[in-house]
Amino acid sequence: MKKMKQMVLPKYFKEIDGEIWLIEDERENMKLSYRVKEILSVSKSIFQQVSIIDTYDFGRCLVLDGVIQTTQIDGFIYNEMISHVPLLTHKNPKNVLIIGGGDCGVAKELSKYSTVDRIDMVEIDELVVQESIKSLPEISGDVHKDSRIRFIFEDGVKYIKDKKEEYDIAIIDSSDPIGPAEVLFSEGFYVDLKKSIKEDGLMVCQSQSPVFHKDILIKTQNILKKHYPIVNTYKAVVPSYPGGMWSFTLASLKYNPLEACVENLSKDTKYINKEIFRSAFNLPSFIREYLE
Amino acid sequence: MKKMKQMVLPKYFKEIDGEIWLIEDERENMKLSYRVKEILSVSKSIFQQVSIIDTYDFGRCLVLDGVIQTTQIDGFIYNEMISHVPLLTHKNPKNVLIIGGGDCGVAKELSKYSTVDRIDMVEIDELVVQESIKSLPEISGDVHKDSRIRFIFEDGVKYIKDKKEEYDIAIIDSSDPIGPAEVLFSEGFYVDLKKSIKEDGLMVCQSQSPVFHKDILIKTQNILKKHYPIVNTYKAVVPSYPGGMWSFTLASLKYNPLEACVENLSKDTKYINKEIFRSAFNLPSFIREYLE
Repeated sequence: MKKMKQMVLPKYFKEIDGEIWLIEDERENMKLSYRVKEILSVSKSIFQQVSIIDTYDFGRCLVLDGVIQTTQIDGFIYNEMISHVPLLTHKNPKNVLIIGGGDCGVAKELSKYSTVDRIDMVEIDELVVQESIKSLPEISGDVHKDSRIRFIFEDGVKYIKDKKEEYDIAIIDSSDPIGPAEVLFSEGFYVDLKKSIKEDGLMVCQSQSPVFHKDILIKTQNILKKHYPIVNTYKAVVPSYPGGMWSFTLASLKYNPLEACVENLSKDTKYINKEIFRSAFNLPSFIREYLE
Repeated sequence: MKKMKQMVLPKYFKEIDGEIWLIEDERENMKLSYRVKEILSVSKSIFQQVSIIDTYDFGRCLVLDGVIQTTQIDGFIYNEMISHVPLLTHKNPKNVLIIGGGDCGVAKELSKYSTVDRIDMVEIDELVVQESIKSLPEISGDVHKDSRIRFIFEDGVKYIKDKKEEYDIAIIDSSDPIGPAEVLFSEGFYVDLKKSIKEDGLMVCQSQSPVFHKDILIKTQNILKKHYPIVNTYKAVVPSYPGGMWSFTLASLKYNPLEACVENLSKDTKYINKEIFRSAFNLPSFIREYLE
């Protein structure tokens, strides 16, 4: 185990028998611990503690306030599912807004489509972007070299307040709805966001674990159904998230994801393919039941 | 936290700040810990330590040698997927063999089909069955009242050695391929098993995590492809298993699961439905790639 010299480790890193472990403490009833190969960096912005670590099971990971956000081994699953699905659902996506997405993985996925003209990425914490570009190239790719991507280091909630019908697609790539990201799950935010997208636009958000946070998934669906005619929840499996099963909810003013032209799917993907796209909307019976 | 009086707790139960936690220690690089509401029983057979616990996140759980095997909250996912898929793939399933399956969940799922005449469940450890029937009724159901189910407390490997074309379907519901269950993943076992099924028969096994044990999934597929003309891997998400994503492999002498009549699916399920059945065989690209 290599660790940085003379660094005082945050409390979620613990040394046990000469090995460093990251102990995720966010959930009351279940804890996940990861054996750490190397701590590459620990830094602090005004928003949070940002660490980059290398683990045995998940490779390099972005850790915010002691909680793993994305990993080298499975970060592509989340990023592909939250990007390619809305992009193929819209018939002519030119201007895309990302709220959050500091690891740059969503921007990287969007940049695979030459049809996209402009990607505005509004991330509150510049440090997360800097660290991800520096130390997580498998996730962030070459986004800093793509002139279509504009990095806007601002509060996404404030940013969209005065935007009127600017975007074809808005992607809400938030962290969990505790702390700073809580507002990104509120009705007020979704109402403002709707004004920022065009009349045939659509939005997508991660809507948490359908097993452990079904209240959030239900609430998100209910709010979005009040404001959009087409609302669909889809699923993916992200091994580094508790429970593995994860949900996304797509809300659209015109285009239906169940009628998307999946033939246009980028060939440069590792999780999503045409069949995974189509079947992502097939939900297990217990989820269907509580969403009805 | 209630715990049993005067019981010496096995070392995988740890008291931290007045709370009991189950710390799963099976994996070298990642540990999962569960806060325990109550330890209902700890007993020991000649094969293993068998505990029944009640947890905050997963409800009641069956724990063998300190590792959670099945839980009240998500046990149905695994049991439905390993049972209904082979049962609907076979056109006329009368006699079904279960190897393992001590929690009785697979027997319970099979018993939902009146077309099935006989269910032989060969479980090496009678204690697991006793404890599951006593304390996990949500998983085991009323299997002890179904006269079609024969409980055979024997080593499955020995049991099938002299069986000739007796079964339409064989379901290998094994624990992980370390220790006693290792032999259930060997070519010799699969060869013997093939003799025990009829000429239009099929078998299914759990083939581990496609993320953390892809070597086992690949090996299982390769062995089965040597002996069966139709071999398909399918997936499900089991939140209490590490990484969530789980694989099953179905090997068939005649019937193709991709042509199964899903209309016959039992209505009494919580995870599987017609769409989930069909799309379970759609694998993410990174899994497709290494299986090709």
